[in-house]
Amino acid sequence: MNAEPYDATPPGGGTAGEVLTRYLHERAAAFLRGLSLRGENEAEADALLRGSARRIGGVLHIYGPLTDPGWAEPLRAELGWLTTTLGREPQYAARLARLLDALRRLSVSVEEQEAVTVGGPPPPAPSGGGPLALGAARAGALLERQLTLARTRAHSASLQAMGSARFHALADAIAVLVSDVPLAPAAAAPAASVMPPLAAQAYRLLADAAAALPLHRAAHPYNADAVQASLGADLTADLQDAPWHQVRILLRLSRYAAEVSRPEGDAADRQRLADAATVLGRHRAAAESASAVATAARTPRIAPATAYALGVLHADQRHEVEAARFAFSRLWQPAVPGPRGQ
Amino acid sequence: MNAEPYDATPPGGGTAGEVLTRYLHERAAAFLRGLSLRGENEAEADALLRGSARRIGGVLHIYGPLTDPGWAEPLRAELGWLTTTLGREPQYAARLARLLDALRRLSVSVEEQEAVTVGGPPPPAPSGGGPLALGAARAGALLERQLTLARTRAHSASLQAMGSARFHALADAIAVLVSDVPLAPAAAAPAASVMPPLAAQAYRLLADAAAALPLHRAAHPYNADAVQASLGADLTADLQDAPWHQVRILLRLSRYAAEVSRPEGDAADRQRLADAATVLGRHRAAAESASAVATAARTPRIAPATAYALGVLHADQRHEVEAARFAFSRLWQPAVPGPRGQ
Repeated sequence: MNAEPYDATPPGGGTAGEVLTRYLHERAAAFLRGLSLRGENEAEADALLRGSARRIGGVLHIYGPLTDPGWAEPLRAELGWLTTTLGREPQYAARLARLLDALRRLSVSVEEQEAVTVGGPPPPAPSGGGPLALGAARAGALLERQLTLARTRAHSASLQAMGSARFHALADAIAVLVSDVPLAPAAAAPAASVMPPLAAQAYRLLADAAAALPLHRAAHPYNADAVQASLGADLTADLQDAPWHQVRILLRLSRYAAEVSRPEGDAADRQRLADAATVLGRHRAAAESASAVATAARTPRIAPATAYALGVLHADQRHEVEAARFAFSRLWQPAVPGPRGQ
Repeated sequence: MNAEPYDATPPGGGTAGEVLTRYLHERAAAFLRGLSLRGENEAEADALLRGSARRIGGVLHIYGPLTDPGWAEPLRAELGWLTTTLGREPQYAARLARLLDALRRLSVSVEEQEAVTVGGPPPPAPSGGGPLALGAARAGALLERQLTLARTRAHSASLQAMGSARFHALADAIAVLVSDVPLAPAAAAPAASVMPPLAAQAYRLLADAAAALPLHRAAHPYNADAVQASLGADLTADLQDAPWHQVRILLRLSRYAAEVSRPEGDAADRQRLADAATVLGRHRAAAESASAVATAARTPRIAPATAYALGVLHADQRHEVEAARFAFSRLWQPAVPGPRGQ
């Protein structure tokens, strides 16, 4: 990855305000499209709402000096509230699917799995049965119950949010964006002189945060770092995961910054950023799935076989965390000259 | 690894019988030394007895055509009995140490572990306590109880074996080896013409068995093959581990063959065989440790937190299995031209 892919290519012509306004127009229009789609396809509509809200919020953050802060700051806070609220339901759904998939993989041999993959009959019951397989089935049922309940609650919360006065005020604010963006005086400067430094700054934050990760260690497969302390205090995993989650967010901001200021950009660079984002998304999904398993294991009165299966599943997801770190370190490292400290 | 490291260099001069006799003399003397050491240092003495018994048995197998089969076959069977009997106690001890180490690693964060490694105070109790840490402590106590009991029984069985008429007959047979080895007519041929083909045959068996392993897949880190079906039927793990264990045994035979027929050999080749043996030893230790954990999890009336910790530990050991396969595939693959199937 080049150290600074944003320092040379100028963004599309015109003033910074014009370029920014054009981008925000498009995203605001997508938001309104999502809103009108909601009656037909809720999941798709929500994804559109979330995606555009995240982009508007991110871009207002990166190009903050170009807009009126008295207007942008409160809008960003409301966009954050909306994306968090709408994001919960799909997250729970994805988490459940991920964990049930993993349980299946942990219960079925390669041969059985291949028989299924090549279009055989529906997934067989775990071969042989036995207490371990029974525990896996019960663990799956427990997770399904807990995550479906969480999902249903998140759905209600989404519906409630979408019907609230708070949401209507936000939708109004975004509708205004389609026609008019409150700009700061700095936005009158040519885009080519004002925007690249702001995008470069976002990228620098990303590069610094990524450089502070233990990439050198993560590049050694099977280092067992991510399972470390998974039986220890609850906070340990959160503490070791947090810097990676932070890089995931900075990566997203950098991608949005690039969408505005050099929409045609270098395809290879964009692909690498996209791949890195995918990998860190997997990192977060695995880390949060492992937490959900640990929570399920605290359910009172579960059978030991169920707890055992949850333990295996927890460690499996922590190894997925480690695998994602390995993949990220491979993606990110090649451009870094020489070895770096752990 | 060269395809056939044994086909060119001639073994030490003289007839095959002389070379073989010289080697067996040395090993038989080591065996008797072990026997007399037993009063002073039982563990060291047993290691010497096991090591020399394994070598004598292995070499009688590889160079079978050079000795009287009516004498060698029953002796090999008795040597196998002895090494198995004496091997159990150290295996249980190593398994317990391995599992307690892993539990510690799974309960303590990197920072805490480093504080201990640099000579700080004794290992701290898992930080924060909490139900997970309590489960880990209980799982450790359960494993300690079960494996210590198994170890004590194995120790009694060793003592009993060493006092048996069967053992005394075996010791007598080995004492005879110091002075006289019953050779076959083929042993009268020059060592250089008879021994290398037999060593090469042993190596070919090893190379073929290693080539049949899914090395290509194992070389991809985090392939999650070894945890596959760890919640399935009990036999699944055994089935996928067996070919690797078989290669471990063939590797040992090849190393013993080389000790006899080209004791000075190519140092780099020997080192690679030794490294591969170490890695496959780790593979077996991790696989058997995972089985011991699964057995412990079947103890009636254990607490869910204990079962959960055992589940995490089981998956951790299966990942160590996978890590060992990865390491082996890296050691073994480079010399193999082109990609291989699976």
